[in-house]
Amino acid sequence: MKLKVRNVQLTTGGPLVAVLHEKTAKALGIFPTDRLHVRRMHKKEGANCVINITKKGVQEDEIGLFEEVIKKLKVSHGVHVEVEQAEHPVSIQFIKKKLEGKELTEQELDLIVKDIVANELSETELTYFVSGCYSHGLSIKETVALTNAIVKNGEQLHFNKGEIVLDKHCSGGVPGNRTTMIVIPIIASLGYKIPKTSSRAITSPSGTADTFEVLAPVTLNKKKIEAVVKKTNACIVWGGGVDLASADDKMIKIRHPLSIDPTGMLLASIMAKKKAAGATHVLIDIPWGKNVKIETKKQAKVLRKGFLKVGKLLGLKIKVLLTDGSQPIGNGIGPALEATDVISVLKGDGPNDLRQKAIFMATEALKLIGEKDAEEKVIQALESGKAYQKFKEIIYAQGGLKHPNIPKAQFFYSINAKQEGKIKEINNKKIALIATLAGAPEEKSAGVYLRVRVSRWVKKGENLFTIYANTKQNLDTIKRQLKELDPIVYE
Amino acid sequence: MKLKVRNVQLTTGGPLVAVLHEKTAKALGIFPTDRLHVRRMHKKEGANCVINITKKGVQEDEIGLFEEVIKKLKVSHGVHVEVEQAEHPVSIQFIKKKLEGKELTEQELDLIVKDIVANELSETELTYFVSGCYSHGLSIKETVALTNAIVKNGEQLHFNKGEIVLDKHCSGGVPGNRTTMIVIPIIASLGYKIPKTSSRAITSPSGTADTFEVLAPVTLNKKKIEAVVKKTNACIVWGGGVDLASADDKMIKIRHPLSIDPTGMLLASIMAKKKAAGATHVLIDIPWGKNVKIETKKQAKVLRKGFLKVGKLLGLKIKVLLTDGSQPIGNGIGPALEATDVISVLKGDGPNDLRQKAIFMATEALKLIGEKDAEEKVIQALESGKAYQKFKEIIYAQGGLKHPNIPKAQFFYSINAKQEGKIKEINNKKIALIATLAGAPEEKSAGVYLRVRVSRWVKKGENLFTIYANTKQNLDTIKRQLKELDPIVYE
Repeated sequence: MKLKVRNVQLTTGGPLVAVLHEKTAKALGIFPTDRLHVRRMHKKEGANCVINITKKGVQEDEIGLFEEVIKKLKVSHGVHVEVEQAEHPVSIQFIKKKLEGKELTEQELDLIVKDIVANELSETELTYFVSGCYSHGLSIKETVALTNAIVKNGEQLHFNKGEIVLDKHCSGGVPGNRTTMIVIPIIASLGYKIPKTSSRAITSPSGTADTFEVLAPVTLNKKKIEAVVKKTNACIVWGGGVDLASADDKMIKIRHPLSIDPTGMLLASIMAKKKAAGATHVLIDIPWGKNVKIETKKQAKVLRKGFLKVGKLLGLKIKVLLTDGSQPIGNGIGPALEATDVISVLKGDGPNDLRQKAIFMATEALKLIGEKDAEEKVIQALESGKAYQKFKEIIYAQGGLKHPNIPKAQFFYSINAKQEGKIKEINNKKIALIATLAGAPEEKSAGVYLRVRVSRWVKKGENLFTIYANTKQNLDTIKRQLKELDPIVYE
Repeated sequence: MKLKVRNVQLTTGGPLVAVLHEKTAKALGIFPTDRLHVRRMHKKEGANCVINITKKGVQEDEIGLFEEVIKKLKVSHGVHVEVEQAEHPVSIQFIKKKLEGKELTEQELDLIVKDIVANELSETELTYFVSGCYSHGLSIKETVALTNAIVKNGEQLHFNKGEIVLDKHCSGGVPGNRTTMIVIPIIASLGYKIPKTSSRAITSPSGTADTFEVLAPVTLNKKKIEAVVKKTNACIVWGGGVDLASADDKMIKIRHPLSIDPTGMLLASIMAKKKAAGATHVLIDIPWGKNVKIETKKQAKVLRKGFLKVGKLLGLKIKVLLTDGSQPIGNGIGPALEATDVISVLKGDGPNDLRQKAIFMATEALKLIGEKDAEEKVIQALESGKAYQKFKEIIYAQGGLKHPNIPKAQFFYSINAKQEGKIKEINNKKIALIATLAGAPEEKSAGVYLRVRVSRWVKKGENLFTIYANTKQNLDTIKRQLKELDPIVYE
């Protein structure tokens, strides 16, 4: 059948979707979510689109195309295309199999991931896949196969064969915990490769990518990343800027509305990103404690076991550290405030807890690759200024300024102790929420500067923390809710 | 925030969906599938919409609204609306609970169904619900609760309290099996109420609603249906024309792409339609055999057990019959050809297997309500012409002609026996496929007229079946594939 293209002028954010008038669909024997092969006249190759059906907006002799299809087919509004019914992707059968609780083979998972990357699955079908993995779990074998499939069907960074490539990962949830930005230049200054792709904040006040963006661009393509790593041994970039694990990004989107995190998928997601970045050795930090993502030591241990098993089968050397996640680390929370802390540590000063944790992590990373006198070397790199020098090299190589200008917020509001006493708890989630309400991470300079720690004795009137914002409105919103938001608990 | 309405001029077919430019979404702190409360300026009441995010087509100061939202809010292109972030429906938490394998309470299921009917769940969330029910099954308690929730949150037919109201249901898959259209007038002519809502064909050549539509309109609203039943004791209408179980229709749509039929959902779907139609007594026909929906006696028995358990808890009197579904019933397959068979049986003639099955079903229905000499009464109703008279009354009451004009196809093609022999098998699925390719059910007169039965001895050259179509093209398509489509197997 020949139909006229109507550009519906919307993006789907993924799936290739075409819209038919209900009468046209009926004539073609097509149901919603069936497939239609759409191609330009006199061309052999086209695209399989998922069909939506409408009663309005698309005429009977038309086919509505979303932006993704318009781009892929290189067609424009008003031209004619040839359509014919197409088979459903075979991977749908494997999705159903998983939903029924059966184990999937490597080949089956590979076909599912291939179709996800090609945008050939509808949102409903992708949801069924995530559901199946959540309801029935993924075996270690499946997790490894899913990881390999994600790596295979995305971009990969390539380095010299046999070369050691380090990477680190943190399960997250601890405000201010910016050790990555310190560990990377330490390791790189000692002569090892450590290309780091990081995430942006989703609901937290800042991710490593958001914080480093204060100092340098973080959205780099593959070629540019490889050049930066070649020059400096390292990089600190946003993973979303390069399609290292694009299947994973699509699955995360589907997991969002119900906050679903199937363990196998989580492991595959993390390991795929490491493998695609060319890592041979991976250090994993699992902070656990009250009000952090991993709340109990038991959960942390289960996760560690998973990482070790999957890592081994993937041929990666892994070390997993369970660390204290019960309170924020460092003083600054929010991109610019965190960047200031990081630079301070690299200059030999800085919040002591952040410095100590960074030294510990870097030491463990060196031990993982068999380096002797690891701690000594790490401290030497920090104190000699070599690590800071390397940090500036990375900033410059990624396109940052030699003397970055760290933005400062226009307004602030200090919270002082109303009583004398010993601090029992600092609530991670509440601190993070305050920083977010202040405007982080969109407002780079917004956030919280925390001056106290658990077990500290504070005097009446002493500054506990200061909130930074760029609009009075944001500050007022927080002030109004300060009773519920107060993160400090006394003994 | 104030935004200008852009009518995106498309329907979603369900969920209330609004589209934001990605920058606007970011400013509002909104992620895809988050909720936004949208209301007309100076109005208190609005609608919670699921948010899609686009890079094009909707400007930063605009909100794109799908037809469903435009209608609900009564707004038009270009006017301003007030938007603010809204909570996710609480039912999402229960969907997650089900996905984790936990049993849902009556109240939780009721809230999920309420949100489905109000179009407040996104396609992804609805898919998670169906997945959970498929992966973990529904307990009998849950099935009953889901049934009640579907009934409660949809339209219901009301009759006099305490009055007997009959209904029948067939699990389907047997071509030509149009007993319903014979049983209904028999029962109604004997003085009992039997309002029948039927489905249209989804992938088969005809549903009861498609076949009866040859004789009378089947899309009637609730008021009209109640009037027809008051007048004639019966009706034969399309269930989709009245919102008797609208939640169910939305769930069926989600089940389509993976052909997922969670048993509990299937039971709830069927029983809800019966209960909403006011039934007190339900006769259920489960034809089983090769190439029909229910393939083994074991499966049929499991389904029977489910129906009986759920029916009892719903306070319905149920009888379930397991019948022979191994070959088509009647001669005609396709709306007009089936209607001809039905009228022929009601006139005292017709294909014997269809007549016998209809007599058996009607007899069992009468026995279910405690009527004595049931079979005698049924045969009497048929032979006296009372049932046929009632049939004509129903047609007329629904708006059909006193002398309906049954359409005839323009082209036909006869398949004759190439050899002498005994017929071992007639493949239901292949016969159905031929009738569908011929144009049924859209083309009312298209289909297959089958002249033989299993175990019949046929002579060489004897007519096996004839294919009817309205375009030569359809006939040619079938002719080309006749080798693979041939439904007749000899011993």
